[in-house]
Amino acid sequence: MTMNASETDITPAQYGVGARFTLSVYADEYVSIILDALAAGDSRGLTIETGDISTYVSGPEQRIYELLLEVISHAAQTGVHLSASILFSRGCPGELQCELPEGVTAIGAHIDTAEPVGVRARAHWSLYPLGVSDTHAHMPIIYSAISEAKSQGIYKGSDHYATRLDGDLSNVLALVMSAWAQTGADVQHVVSHVTISINSPSEIND
Amino acid sequence: MTMNASETDITPAQYGVGARFTLSVYADEYVSIILDALAAGDSRGLTIETGDISTYVSGPEQRIYELLLEVISHAAQTGVHLSASILFSRGCPGELQCELPEGVTAIGAHIDTAEPVGVRARAHWSLYPLGVSDTHAHMPIIYSAISEAKSQGIYKGSDHYATRLDGDLSNVLALVMSAWAQTGADVQHVVSHVTISINSPSEIND
Repeated sequence: MTMNASETDITPAQYGVGARFTLSVYADEYVSIILDALAAGDSRGLTIETGDISTYVSGPEQRIYELLLEVISHAAQTGVHLSASILFSRGCPGELQCELPEGVTAIGAHIDTAEPVGVRARAHWSLYPLGVSDTHAHMPIIYSAISEAKSQGIYKGSDHYATRLDGDLSNVLALVMSAWAQTGADVQHVVSHVTISINSPSEIND
Repeated sequence: MTMNASETDITPAQYGVGARFTLSVYADEYVSIILDALAAGDSRGLTIETGDISTYVSGPEQRIYELLLEVISHAAQTGVHLSASILFSRGCPGELQCELPEGVTAIGAHIDTAEPVGVRARAHWSLYPLGVSDTHAHMPIIYSAISEAKSQGIYKGSDHYATRLDGDLSNVLALVMSAWAQTGADVQHVVSHVTISINSPSEIND
């Protein structure tokens, strides 16, 4: 059963749609930079809980995308080196057991890519479809995402355990979240992790 | 088939055993702190590749544990706030396709916990068995790890998408890596992610 979230009565919260991210700022002034960045995000329609290790955000996929883009690009505009480690999850509310309404199998979603924000993002990205014995079944979605990344010029190859992306933050985030949300149309429980590096002094123009 | 790595002729590299980590240092002097920390790790028996986003390390599980403990605790001893985002993977060399010798299904491993290093680590931890339709099959291993964490006093509850740990870095890393390596005895392809926060100004003593 392939459905988009808008075709169901299930809320993102019920379906366990959300992200957990850690924004790391490599500067003495990190406290104010992180707090300012978090304050710059439009939290409407989202549940946000900031803790000592990471920040949890739940809500519609598109709003999560917009919030992450606002928060990370705001911090990036200080010019300091930073990294963002983000976990996306869908299809499993709670980490030890899933409690879904009966009859729901898989719900996908679509992400509209925002305009470029002028922030170069280099990333290592991994996608994990869970609870399926044939992990190659989602490969067409991965290949499609990689093909899209190549056409945008942001695919930079495969490293151990992760795919390397390099491009405007809006495109990199959209690609990662789209692959995650589209895999979700075929697989109920899908997790993706990405580590994004911005303003690194070791940036090279390859 | 349950095997430990020592019972096979398969090398960790052939089995895709390794980690990819990003050490984030929240201080202006991050370059020297990160380089000093990486230099403090004993790389014998390991393959280490440091890139602009993260550092890849491959080799026997115990040696990976020791290296991560040395590198992170060295950085922690500067007293600055830092976070470490670590991906562990086993059972799948290469991220787009697995190429294993025939007949290999699952190989576990054991981690010997080192002495405490005097560094408090707060962590969000997730474990992903891949390619299995029954993701609850590994729950006894998770429950056993959580039970062990409770007996050590380092289990602090379950948050969205992650289990919260809090304890000496040597115990936290050993718990995460042991659960990953022991799940590996039943499931070939196992990935685990952990984000560790150290020297945070928002630390509370709960």
